[in-house]
Formats: sequence, C-alpha cells, structure tokens
Amino acid sequence: MLAAQRASASVARASQRRIARPQLLTRTQQPCFSSLTPRAFPPPLRTPPTRRAHLRFASSGPPSAKASVKEPTAVFVPKPRTRIVHLVYRSFAGLGAFIVISGVIVLAFFAFDASTYSENPESIDLTISEHAINPRRGGPKNLPIAEYFVSDDEPSFREQKHKPKLVILGTGWGSVPLLKTLVAGEYHVTVVSPSNHFLFTPMLPSATVGTLELRSLVEPVRKIVRKAKAHFLMGSATDVEFSEKLVEIESIGPNGVKESFYLPYDKLVIGVGSITNPHGVKGLEHCHFLKSISDARKIRNKIINNLETACLPTTSDEERRRLLSFVVSGGGPTGVEFAAELYDMLNEDLVKYYPRILRNEISVHVIQSRGHILNTYDEALSQYAEERLAHDMVDVQTNARVKEVRADRILFSTKDAETNEFVTKELPMGFCLWSTGVSQTEFCQKLASKLGDAQTNKHALETDSHLRLTGTPLGDIYAIGDCSTVQNNVSDHIITFLRTLAWEKGKDPSAMHISYPDWRNVAKRVKSRFPQATDHLRRLDKLFEQYDADKSGTLDFAELSELLKQIDAKLTSLPATAQRANQQGLYLARKLNALSRAAPGMEANMITDGDVDEAVYKAFEYRNMGSLAYVGNSAIFDFGGGWSFGGGLVAVYLWRSIYFTQSVSLRTRVLLAMDWSKRAIFGRDMMNF
Amino acid sequence: MLAAQRASASVARASQRRIARPQLLTRTQQPCFSSLTPRAFPPPLRTPPTRRAHLRFASSGPPSAKASVKEPTAVFVPKPRTRIVHLVYRSFAGLGAFIVISGVIVLAFFAFDASTYSENPESIDLTISEHAINPRRGGPKNLPIAEYFVSDDEPSFREQKHKPKLVILGTGWGSVPLLKTLVAGEYHVTVVSPSNHFLFTPMLPSATVGTLELRSLVEPVRKIVRKAKAHFLMGSATDVEFSEKLVEIESIGPNGVKESFYLPYDKLVIGVGSITNPHGVKGLEHCHFLKSISDARKIRNKIINNLETACLPTTSDEERRRLLSFVVSGGGPTGVEFAAELYDMLNEDLVKYYPRILRNEISVHVIQSRGHILNTYDEALSQYAEERLAHDMVDVQTNARVKEVRADRILFSTKDAETNEFVTKELPMGFCLWSTGVSQTEFCQKLASKLGDAQTNKHALETDSHLRLTGTPLGDIYAIGDCSTVQNNVSDHIITFLRTLAWEKGKDPSAMHISYPDWRNVAKRVKSRFPQATDHLRRLDKLFEQYDADKSGTLDFAELSELLKQIDAKLTSLPATAQRANQQGLYLARKLNALSRAAPGMEANMITDGDVDEAVYKAFEYRNMGSLAYVGNSAIFDFGGGWSFGGGLVAVYLWRSIYFTQSVSLRTRVLLAMDWSKRAIFGRDMMNF
Repeated sequence: MLAAQRASASVARASQRRIARPQLLTRTQQPCFSSLTPRAFPPPLRTPPTRRAHLRFASSGPPSAKASVKEPTAVFVPKPRTRIVHLVYRSFAGLGAFIVISGVIVLAFFAFDASTYSENPESIDLTISEHAINPRRGGPKNLPIAEYFVSDDEPSFREQKHKPKLVILGTGWGSVPLLKTLVAGEYHVTVVSPSNHFLFTPMLPSATVGTLELRSLVEPVRKIVRKAKAHFLMGSATDVEFSEKLVEIESIGPNGVKESFYLPYDKLVIGVGSITNPHGVKGLEHCHFLKSISDARKIRNKIINNLETACLPTTSDEERRRLLSFVVSGGGPTGVEFAAELYDMLNEDLVKYYPRILRNEISVHVIQSRGHILNTYDEALSQYAEERLAHDMVDVQTNARVKEVRADRILFSTKDAETNEFVTKELPMGFCLWSTGVSQTEFCQKLASKLGDAQTNKHALETDSHLRLTGTPLGDIYAIGDCSTVQNNVSDHIITFLRTLAWEKGKDPSAMHISYPDWRNVAKRVKSRFPQATDHLRRLDKLFEQYDADKSGTLDFAELSELLKQIDAKLTSLPATAQRANQQGLYLARKLNALSRAAPGMEANMITDGDVDEAVYKAFEYRNMGSLAYVGNSAIFDFGGGWSFGGGLVAVYLWRSIYFTQSVSLRTRVLLAMDWSKRAIFGRDMMNF
Repeated sequence: MLAAQRASASVARASQRRIARPQLLTRTQQPCFSSLTPRAFPPPLRTPPTRRAHLRFASSGPPSAKASVKEPTAVFVPKPRTRIVHLVYRSFAGLGAFIVISGVIVLAFFAFDASTYSENPESIDLTISEHAINPRRGGPKNLPIAEYFVSDDEPSFREQKHKPKLVILGTGWGSVPLLKTLVAGEYHVTVVSPSNHFLFTPMLPSATVGTLELRSLVEPVRKIVRKAKAHFLMGSATDVEFSEKLVEIESIGPNGVKESFYLPYDKLVIGVGSITNPHGVKGLEHCHFLKSISDARKIRNKIINNLETACLPTTSDEERRRLLSFVVSGGGPTGVEFAAELYDMLNEDLVKYYPRILRNEISVHVIQSRGHILNTYDEALSQYAEERLAHDMVDVQTNARVKEVRADRILFSTKDAETNEFVTKELPMGFCLWSTGVSQTEFCQKLASKLGDAQTNKHALETDSHLRLTGTPLGDIYAIGDCSTVQNNVSDHIITFLRTLAWEKGKDPSAMHISYPDWRNVAKRVKSRFPQATDHLRRLDKLFEQYDADKSGTLDFAELSELLKQIDAKLTSLPATAQRANQQGLYLARKLNALSRAAPGMEANMITDGDVDEAVYKAFEYRNMGSLAYVGNSAIFDFGGGWSFGGGLVAVYLWRSIYFTQSVSLRTRVLLAMDWSKRAIFGRDMMNF
C-alpha cells in the first residue's frame, strides 16, 4: 500500500507537469472513459475505488462536475452537456495549441529571415595583382592572356593561385558533376560557359507548357563554382592552341562588342555539348528548338500566343485549325515528352479558360523518320508509347522524313501504305518543334579538323577510354558529354597487341594458335582496357567453343579476329544523354582528385610525362542505368537487359521521384515539389510574357 | 445501475472504434496513470473496482502487464524498467502516428493530384453562329464587326448573348477589380488588352533583382475573366467611333500581321493606363523602363549581365566601374524602391558569388528633379528615406534634371552649391532606369483630340465625378485608372449653379447675399457632387467667418467665389496610383451592378436617357488609404493627415503583409510567401536567361 501511495504521488507530479500542456491533458479524458469495456473483469485491486472517481473529475475540470462528486451515482451517467463541454474545451485547447505552435514557428522563421538581411555594407581592402588588371598580350593572335584574375588574391582563392590551371568549358551535365565532386583547392579552376546556369535538361519539356516553372530547372552556376573554389567567366571557347596550352575565349565586352582573350591551361576539360542537328532541311527558321531555358520560354509564349490568336474574331476557321496544329519533328524522348506535355496542357487547362471550339480543333502531330517512336527504347515500350499517344489522339507519322518547313506548313515524304512508294505530304501547322538528334558545335568541328587524322568521327570529338582527346598530348585535354565519344575499336587495338606479342615470341601471327588459358588472358586484358566490353565477355568458354570453327581446341588468328570483331560490333557508341555526361564528369573528377593526390609522389620521382592517367586511375566505364520517358499521364522505364515497364499515374509519380532525387540542389528540389503541387491546385498559368 | 451499464456499453463501442486508430489509443495510457492524484478521495463508487484494473491493463498492452494482473500488488510499484518501456513504447507510437498521419496527408494529396489529370479528352458538339465565323463588315473603315463570338453559344455564355454589351479596355488595377466585383451574367462583357495577365505593379521593383519571381506578381486574366463570365480578346484599342458605338481593335493576326476590327459596345470602360513620360529627353533608347513584367525580366538580365562582364579579364578598371554604376532617373516610389532593392541584392547576394572587387566598385545613383525624393510623401518620410539611402551609400542628386542619356553616360544639370548656377554634370553608367512619371497613351491622345474642347487636360482623359468621359453621350463611356482624371473645378460648377439659382429667383447674382443656413445648403450640395471636397468643408462656421470679409453676417457673390476657389486649389488632381484605379474599378462595378438592377424598372417607365447614373448611384469619392514605400531594409508609411511613420525590418514585414493581403489571388499569395521564404533560405538567383 505504501508503494502504491508512492506511485500515485509520483503520478500526481506527472499529472501536474502535464497540466501545463492543455492539449495533452484533454486528449486523455475520452480514452479513459472509453476503455471501460464490461467484458473482462480482472481480480479486484487493493486501491480504494474512490480514486477512480477522482481521476475523472480531476481531469474534467468544470465546477459543476465537482459538485456531482457528492452524488456518486451520477458519475457513470454520461451527461450530454458534459460531453459537449469536454468537446468544446478540447477544441479550444487544440486551437490554442495550434496557434501557439504555429506562432512559434512563424516567429522563428521571421527571426531567421531577419538575420539574412545585411545591414552594413561590407567593404574590405583588396590587393589586386597588376597582371589581373592589365593582362600581358601574346599567343599566335596577340590577344590578352588571362593568367591572373581580379579575385585571385581574395582569402578564399589565394591558396590556389599557383596551383595547376584546370579550365572547364561548359556548365552542363558533364562539367557540373565534375565541379561538385572535385576536391576544392587542389587546382586553380576556371569554368567558362556562355550561360551562368546549369539546366536540368530531362525535365525541359515540362517547362514548355508550365507544368514546371523555368527557374525550377536551373541552378546558378556561381553557387556551384563558389563551393568548388573555382572562378567563372561568361564566354564561349572558340579555339585551342595545343602547343602553347591556351584556349581562346570570346565574350561580350562592356560595349556589347565581342572580345577575345586567351586563357592558359594545364588541363582542359571540354564539355561544350552539342547543337540541334538540322539534317540539311530548309526553313528551320520557322521551327522552335528545345535546348536551353530560353527556348522553353519562347515555346511557352508561342503556344499561348497561338491560342489567343485563335480566339480573335478576325481569325478564319481554317486559320484557327492551322494555328492549333502543333507539329513535333523527331520521335525521340524530347519530342515525345513535349507532345505528351503539350497534350496534357491542352486537355487539362485549355478547356477551362478558352472557348470550347479550340479544344475541338486542336491537333498534335509527331513526325518520326524511323519505324517507331522512342526507337532507342525496348520495343514493347516503344509500342506502349505509341498506343498511349494514339489514345490521346496524337497523330504519329512513322517512316516519314521532313523535307521542308514553311511558315504555315511542313512538307514530309512518307511511304504510301498501298502503293509502297514515297509520296510527299503537307501538314498545315501553327507551331513546329525541331528535335531530331544532336550535331557537333563549330568549336568542336574546328578542333577535330585541327587534329587531322587523329579525329575521324564526324559527329563528336573522339577520346580514348581515359577520356583524353585523341591526338593531343596525353593528360592535357579531356572531352566529356555530348560533344565527345569514347573510341571502342577493340579488335583493332587487341589485334595490334596480339601481332606484337606474336612477333616478339618470334612467331608468325598467321600461324599463331591460342589455347583456352591464353584466351582467358587476352579477354582479361580486353576487359581492363575496354570496360564496356565486359558484358559481352562473360561466358568465355562458350565464346571459345563458338568461334573455334575447326574444333581444334585452339583459336587461330582468323578465328580470334572474327570473335573480337563481333564483340566490337555489339558495342554501340555511347548515347548522347545526361546520364553518360554525368558519369563522365564524376569519373573525371575522381581521376583529377587521384592525380592531385599522386602529384607529390610523381614529382619526387620526376615522373612528368607518360601515361600518368593509366597509372593512377582506371579507364572510364559506362553503366547504363536505364532510360525513362513521360508519355502523357503515364511513363515508361527501360532499365536495359530486358528490364522494362510502362504504366499510368503511379509510374508518373515514380518518374518524378527519380528526377526529384537527381535534381541538382535542395533549392531545385523544393521548387520542383512546389511546382507539382501548384499545378494540381491552381493549374498551369496561361500567360505569355 | 442500469443506466451505468448502458453507459459503459456505449463507451465500449466507442473504445472499439478507437482501436482502429492506434495513435490515439497509445496516447491514453500515460494520462490515465498520471491522473491518479492522491489528494482528493471522493466517496466510493458502486461500480466493481475490477473494471478499473481492466482499464489500465487493456490499454497498457504488453503481455508482462497482463501477467501482473494475477499479482495486483505489483500494479502500483513504478518499476523503472516499465517506465523506460513506456517511454520507448510511447516514442515508437508517436513516431508511428507521425508516419501514419504524414503518410495519409501525402496519400491524400497524391489522390487529389491524380484526380486533376484528365484521362479522356472531352470533345463536345458545339453550335457556332455563322456571324461569329464570318463577321459582317461595316463602320467608317469597313472593318469586320465582331458582334458575336465563337464562344457565345457555349452553355456558360448563352444567357448573356443578348445582354447589353460592356467592353472593358485594359487588364490593370482598374479593370480587374471591376471584373471581380461585377455581378456575372448581367452584361455581355468583353475584355480587350494586349497582355493576358494582371500585374501587381506595386511589387514590381522587387522582381527586378529576384527578391520575388516574375510569376508571383502576375495572374492570368483568363481566370478572372472566366469567373466573371466574360470574353477576352488579346489586342489594343486604337480608336472609338462614338456615333456608331464601335471601338476599333488592333491585334496580331495568324500570320504575324496586324489586323483591325470593330467591337460594338453599349457601355465602354477605358482603363488602358499610361506610358512612361519621356520629358523630351534624348537617348531614352539607352534606358530601361519599369511598367511591365517583361521590363522587370530585361532589367534583371541586364544587371546580371553587367556583373558578369565586370568579371572578364578584358574589362578595364574604368569600364568595370562604369558597368557597376547604376543610375535611377526619377525619385518617385518606383525609382526609390528599385534603388533600394538593387542595393539589397548587391549587398546581400553579390558578395557571396562574385569577386569582392565588384562590391567595392559598385555605385547606385538616384537623380531627382525636385528638392526631395518621394516628394508626394510626408516631408519627414521623405527625409527618413533620404537618410536611409545615404546610409546605404546610395548617391541622391536632388534638383537635378536629366538632359541627355548616352550609351555609356548620363548628362544632367544641377545647381552648383557655391555659385548657385546651373551646371551640367556627367555620370558614367552601365545601367539606367527611367521612371519619371506617366504620360498619356496614343489612343487616349486620339480620343481627347476627337472630343475637342470637352477635353482640355493634356495628361489624362477628363471625366465627371461619375467617371463618365466628358464630351461623350452620358453613360456610354467611362474612363478609370491612370489614363483618366476626375474633373474637380468645383468653383466653376457651383458658381454656374448659383448664378442659375439667383437668376431663377429673379435676383442679380452680384447683388446676392448668402446667409449661414444658405451656405450650409450650398456646402452640402458641393459635398454630394464633389466628394473629394468633403475634407475641406468640415468647419463650415469657420469658413463662413473667415471669408465673410466685411463681417456682414452674409457672404456676397465675390466672397463665396473666393471661398470656393480656395477649396478648389486645395484639391489636387487624383494621384496616378494603383489605389485610385482600384477604387474607381470597384466604384464602377457597383454602379454597373446598380444600373443592371434598375434596368427593368427604367424600361417599364421608358427612361432611356438623362442622367441615369446620378439617379441610381452616388458620385465617385476617392479615399486616400495612404502610401507606402520600401527604402532598403526599412519601409515608410504615409496614411495621410499627418499619420505617418518609417521603420526597419518590422516595418518591412508590415509593408509586405499589406501587399500580401491586397494581392489578387490565393495563387499569388502562396507564391509570394514562398518567394520570401526562398530568398531567406537560398538567396536570390543570380542567373540571366
């Protein structure tokens, strides 16, 4: 009994503490009451039952309840009035708590907000090197050479002033991951790009119709640059002087006139991306493109403008139908996603605010040169997407080649289903998006032509498997992202190697025979040098058996060559995707970090040239993490190797969450989440400005 | 006892219901326990005490507790282990509850989101009048006359098809409140404007530097228009044919060529706003303006561009200083707020991401032609703002007139402090904002000249106190907002009236004497006709005494004229503010509602002309609700009549909350709140696109 009293005393203290928090106290009443189930009767307790009555009245508060203590029979009669009082009391307590908590949160935020205003202007003394203000001139074109910057002597940059100069061209999917992964302070890093933002390209089609806002897809590059202790210059690279290690930059000067200067480098990373492929078609000035954020804004304005013009009383029926005919040239992911987003907007928002006739007269067309849209995806997905678009009444023209674009129509040739002959068709249009693959920038073309025979690919700069630009001194210049391609002529390399090996052993290569253990060694070598071939060199025994045509138990030179050539053929060139650029950027950052770590050792051993990259880091290996695409209230996923699926809204939410996690910063993630909510609550904004 | 059993049975049911929600059940344990205070022992209850034990154990859950039922003494011993178990149990329950509740909220939102996607395209049959597709031609210029629209036969518009045609020109601070207050369906309403959004102009300076996003300040007009069951056409009014009741609209047709058509009206509301006043200064093509949302975007891009150019190694020291010299021409609210916002951005965000030298070389200048900035505000506030800007090292040049703007400098004349002579000064600049008051649009100039003598004001369209455009048939055309001014030549009108009165009474007006009771009647009449004079007609006795020069106890004609002239002089013309336009829009909407209510009665009585407006609704009365301005981490408020104050951050929050509540829609309010939070957390985006 003593123990019990102690217990109830301590409990009473707890109860007193609790009283300070009315919202918790009130919560307790109803459950205590409601737990009185009459089913189970445990053995009687030694505690006086009177306490129980107290329990109820202590918490129920009002004086009228206390009065009824004198008449205990009344206790178990649930008076409706008391319950209402309880309920009101509880509601007020809950409301009070809510107001207090919200108030505290708001006040805390205001306090934080107030702390972000800088009241007194900071003005510190700076020493700026004379070289930074008046750079010396030189190089083949006698241009200013930007060896030092005005910010080089700032506290946060001083340490890097004399570190090896790393120049990064571009601020896209290759350069930004590179910058974010690079250990800050190990290089004197300069980023050069004509745009001062990083664009999250995979969601760009969503921004064209207002599903997402433009600012949610871009991140200021200077934020990323500052974290990497790097410098940023707004300009475009126009040329590289390989011998003097100078990259020529063109930028718009104070008077709006283009000015050029040289930027010296020790290591140069080219990540300048690509341009839209015009495919030699006439009239592309009547088309819109979708590469930059301004493109998305222009498209958005153009679409709304067409809708507004379609409402004018002076617009004829025929003209209205033309204005509302939207054509997408190119059935790749960009084209298909744009068509899907456009259709969504027309279907969900247009009907709410524009005359109904517009909805009836709208048409969306996709013109694709191949047999299927999304032809890089699994065939089942490609079909799913086609069915989805057909359900949405988006007209898909396959095996159709655009011949010419005019201000008001698009001409394309397609095979007639009956006669099987090519016929030219015309489609009146009010808007055309041109998204038919990528092509090399002028700068890359110039570099390729300068490097002559070393560069044979017409579409991209060739690099070795260490991403070093072929034809330039090893370790000077790297190329990543869309502007580059990794050479994978495996057979040539290995055969040359085998030849050398055979001759060294004093054997005629044509008379060489390779046993299974030898073959395993060769395969190992191939894998280490060309990681992307690994997938195709899994079952070495089967391959050996399959290509040992004469069943001799050994491979002769011809048989081995055939085997390697087949593997080579299977290795398609890397796709021009954000995913690849991202992997290359990360790879290069890790290598550059490894190189800077290895530098002191190499200096001590006086290793200044040779294949340093190969010595400190592995070759680049592309891993296909799969592709995804939005196809109009549903999404498709292709994870490679037969793993693929497509589905409705749940897939759309998955598609969004994948991009959400891959988004570049907390800021963009918050903005993305807000944009999605905004669309659901307020719809898309139908405005152009 | 029976009643008690019934009660507990009902409670048991409640308990069962409750079990489905574990988060509430677990909450109940501790409080039941803790409420056992040993202080008060109410009389024993008749209920078997066993129930109580059950109560505890049923809710405390763990099997060990159930086991202790057989040993009741153990119940009241507070075992520390049990308390920890409780605590852990409770934490888990709390966590679980949090996860479940959050999950439910997220799922609910996703369910809501999913419901916003329209799966199956709606395509309904429409009947469209032939007149809508092929409008008849006519009018003085034989243009198409848009009598019917393609949307007129839609279910939501069918009712209004034959209602009186109300045409509203503009979508600004006058027209939008009008539209929002107008009772939907009473008129066939058509809104015509070159922009399809409403712009919240008072916060525009904040958008120029990224404190707010552009989209947060604009609301799609079609949303507002749809709610008012109105039609919207994108175009600009170019002329009005008063006799045929046609307004000529110019819009950009399907091929990008301007096309004109007539829009018939029964009532026309002109709310086309104003343009920036060039004051005849040469070289304004080198200046930026701040009237539209595109202007804000251009300014933002230009500022960032200047900062980027200032970082280039080819930019000389002198050029950098010029690029970083920001000049604001005009010391009104827009100019001052822009200077303040610009300074904030430079001070808070620039230093984080740009070389430090930029911060040291930045200068902001305000050139004001008057003696003080914010000269329409209370003098103390004006001084406060000047001190504030001086503290922020913003250079304010007062009594300075801009003479010419060149690409790289601005020339202005100012009084030399010593010689007191006007001298011309030069200021190198990289950016110039021109915000020096408003001027009439071309359309308004044309209307004014067409109306000849009826319109004498060179700056705005004159209306009577019912906002009817002077010189046009009564009740046909109204003008509101910046493009209009309300005539307040009180004395002229009243004197004419007095003359008429005098002559009617057969007296010579010059011999008339007005007693104090007469004067009170006259004053009452003046107040009802010119409400803005009310403030100046408060102490009628004092006025009477003051102007009764000969102390005759009556006012003669000359004395009365003098009195009224003095009052007239005190009534300055209404300010060109959002506030005034808003009040006029609301006023006009209420009057139009009253007119449509009165229409059946007037028709029955065959009242078709005469001063119908005066018959159904009072004259427009402007109420000055005060002005506010942001002056750089502080704000000033001028509520008129000597009520004014200025202060720091708390005032800024007040300034924001005033605009927050006045914002046009829930959407813009949500966006504004998010923008302010975004700035605090992530800073302003330093990007241009």
